[in-house]
Amino acid sequence: MARLKGNAVIGQSGGPTVVINQTLVGLVKEAIKHSEIENIYGAHHAVQGILEDDLIDLTGEPEDVLERVACTPGAALGSVRKKPTGDECRRMFEVLKSHGVRYFFYIGGNDSAESANIIGKLAIGEDYEIQVFHVPKTIDNDLMVTDHCPGYGSAARFVAMALMGDDMDNRSIPGIKVDVVMGRSAGFLTAAASLGRRSEEDGPHLIYLPERAFEMEKFLDDVTKVYEKLGRCVIAVSEGIATADGKPVYKSGEKDAFGNVQLSGSGALGDFLAQAIKKHFAVSCGKKKMRVRGDTLGYLQRCFPSIVSEIDAREARMVGEAAVRFAVESGENGSVAIKRVGDGKSYSVEPFVTPLESVARKARAMPDEFINKEGNNVTESFRQYAGPLAGELPVMGRLGMTRVPSRTG
Amino acid sequence: MARLKGNAVIGQSGGPTVVINQTLVGLVKEAIKHSEIENIYGAHHAVQGILEDDLIDLTGEPEDVLERVACTPGAALGSVRKKPTGDECRRMFEVLKSHGVRYFFYIGGNDSAESANIIGKLAIGEDYEIQVFHVPKTIDNDLMVTDHCPGYGSAARFVAMALMGDDMDNRSIPGIKVDVVMGRSAGFLTAAASLGRRSEEDGPHLIYLPERAFEMEKFLDDVTKVYEKLGRCVIAVSEGIATADGKPVYKSGEKDAFGNVQLSGSGALGDFLAQAIKKHFAVSCGKKKMRVRGDTLGYLQRCFPSIVSEIDAREARMVGEAAVRFAVESGENGSVAIKRVGDGKSYSVEPFVTPLESVARKARAMPDEFINKEGNNVTESFRQYAGPLAGELPVMGRLGMTRVPSRTG
Repeated sequence: MARLKGNAVIGQSGGPTVVINQTLVGLVKEAIKHSEIENIYGAHHAVQGILEDDLIDLTGEPEDVLERVACTPGAALGSVRKKPTGDECRRMFEVLKSHGVRYFFYIGGNDSAESANIIGKLAIGEDYEIQVFHVPKTIDNDLMVTDHCPGYGSAARFVAMALMGDDMDNRSIPGIKVDVVMGRSAGFLTAAASLGRRSEEDGPHLIYLPERAFEMEKFLDDVTKVYEKLGRCVIAVSEGIATADGKPVYKSGEKDAFGNVQLSGSGALGDFLAQAIKKHFAVSCGKKKMRVRGDTLGYLQRCFPSIVSEIDAREARMVGEAAVRFAVESGENGSVAIKRVGDGKSYSVEPFVTPLESVARKARAMPDEFINKEGNNVTESFRQYAGPLAGELPVMGRLGMTRVPSRTG
Repeated sequence: MARLKGNAVIGQSGGPTVVINQTLVGLVKEAIKHSEIENIYGAHHAVQGILEDDLIDLTGEPEDVLERVACTPGAALGSVRKKPTGDECRRMFEVLKSHGVRYFFYIGGNDSAESANIIGKLAIGEDYEIQVFHVPKTIDNDLMVTDHCPGYGSAARFVAMALMGDDMDNRSIPGIKVDVVMGRSAGFLTAAASLGRRSEEDGPHLIYLPERAFEMEKFLDDVTKVYEKLGRCVIAVSEGIATADGKPVYKSGEKDAFGNVQLSGSGALGDFLAQAIKKHFAVSCGKKKMRVRGDTLGYLQRCFPSIVSEIDAREARMVGEAAVRFAVESGENGSVAIKRVGDGKSYSVEPFVTPLESVARKARAMPDEFINKEGNNVTESFRQYAGPLAGELPVMGRLGMTRVPSRTG
């Protein structure tokens, strides 16, 4: 394909992250540098904005505004969860053509990559020359091909710190605590709960991932063992855990536009597990007053301001910049991916292009080497993989705990 | 009373905070300076540790360990929720006497002040010379007499930032969001959800406090009005909201040692309100697919590392130091309180002593001037009161949103 010349549209799709605006700003600032791109537009609420001919002019946005937006959580352009139909794609082409758009950059997860892929393919059928690039974003870290996804490192940092704090809280007033972590079908974010651990006594002591079938009996047995050893137990559970026959352990009934069951925005799974533990200790162990609590970390995992991994912020910017360069230089559609480079001692990455089909819709699960044999924790290998992405974590202080000899026997 | 000479015991009681260890370290470092105090002991899990003669020697704890502990969430000595009986007090005196303890410092809320008060009174009856000081700590900010409580500012900062992030998230994908905030009977922490607002469009758009009777019909009406105006609505709700007859809107049933109903550690209230809103929009407005989510901010409000208000950390240290000075110099029992001083233009405080009875058990509610007439939001007066306590908040960036003129009509 020859190099196209025209305007560019950027969309932010799916669940926002704390660094998705870094990607937006990376795209805008890189696009300005290339003569092939004239005006830079934002699609207000992604494909919805294109359908409604509701575009935002980003070309003249001042530098200081862009840099402040880059550090702000949420999708500055507005997002949407929507998969365009064939008819909608044709309406989108009408709008995009009318605005002289030749470049379409779509920031999002695998559902967004699928939308980008559909748009790219239909454009060929409609004989409309437009280049479509997907730019990765997801706290779930579940995209194929790429080593990891922008948005994951910061969410992992939030989850790791949340569990570090909650573990100190649980040491203060011992009991059993269940923390439910986001992640529909991949356990990467839940696994990040382990990143703050410095000793065997540190929580979370148990981690349950959607990659392994959840068995209630085994779960209660695991919890009891930890409690008997430590007098307390902190547990990280993925919202996506399911039994061996694939049924969610607890589900609300609501589905999103992609047919995915709604898991977030409800405390039901955490409450359900806490009740099950409470009942188990009362019935099987005769402990009727066991202190059991459930928290669902919720949307804060993807939007809490200031808890941002530096590496994640930098890479989110990088994939935006790379998408523009790849699009302009390659003349092909594609998706940006990240690979680790170097000697493996220090952390270093570079971006590369992968076909849209290779990331569209499919979700990557945690590899077996990241999950322990028992299926109730992560391995050191996972911590080495995810540690640099979340960044350096605060160190918790501990008293020496020198006991005063008892005088009353 | 003459100045006593002997050892000191420090206890940390009730729910921990991110700055309760600042108070502990303030007590230890100040106590070292006074010749009246010989050894400094910590009670492992508060009164429980005294009952079990389980004390920790803090006298020789290295400076760097203390300073790291000061910046660590949770109660480094371990905490407990326990009100000692008369018999238990006598057992405690036996232990304390055997260790030559003449000073007892108890860090906690109004329940802990009550325990301190009971211990102080019974000691007189038992003819045991010991000075008892309560040192304030509570994220609820509900102690009498004091202007505010150490622990509140940092929790308020967390809640304010959580709502700032969640509001950006809600702008990205509009819908209705309910965030449940801690606070058994006082709305101060829920009210702090307002501190990040910079315009009328910023959430939370509605705030419900335990100080006002909750009416479901009015609530749904309020939410509908905001939604009709802005196309979205973010709501902060106290976990302690109750109907006019004093019944919690939703309750679990479990009670703690002080007879308080358990409200935290469950997502039930948030889910209940989200369902009510969903049903209302489906039935009354014909909107069956309204996006409604509920999050319960949970224990992170009191334990998330690094989200600490500088003023709060400083004052938590200050009340610890002041407690030692007051105890040694006054020869009386008491509780430390904080008052604002100066011209009211710049923020400045000083500590003072108030009798244990004045803070024991009683809970302070939000004053009327902090709540709007409709009872569904806070006033500017509250924001002026709480703003300095939470500290400067990050500024959210916004795009200029210059619309590209439509070309497809």
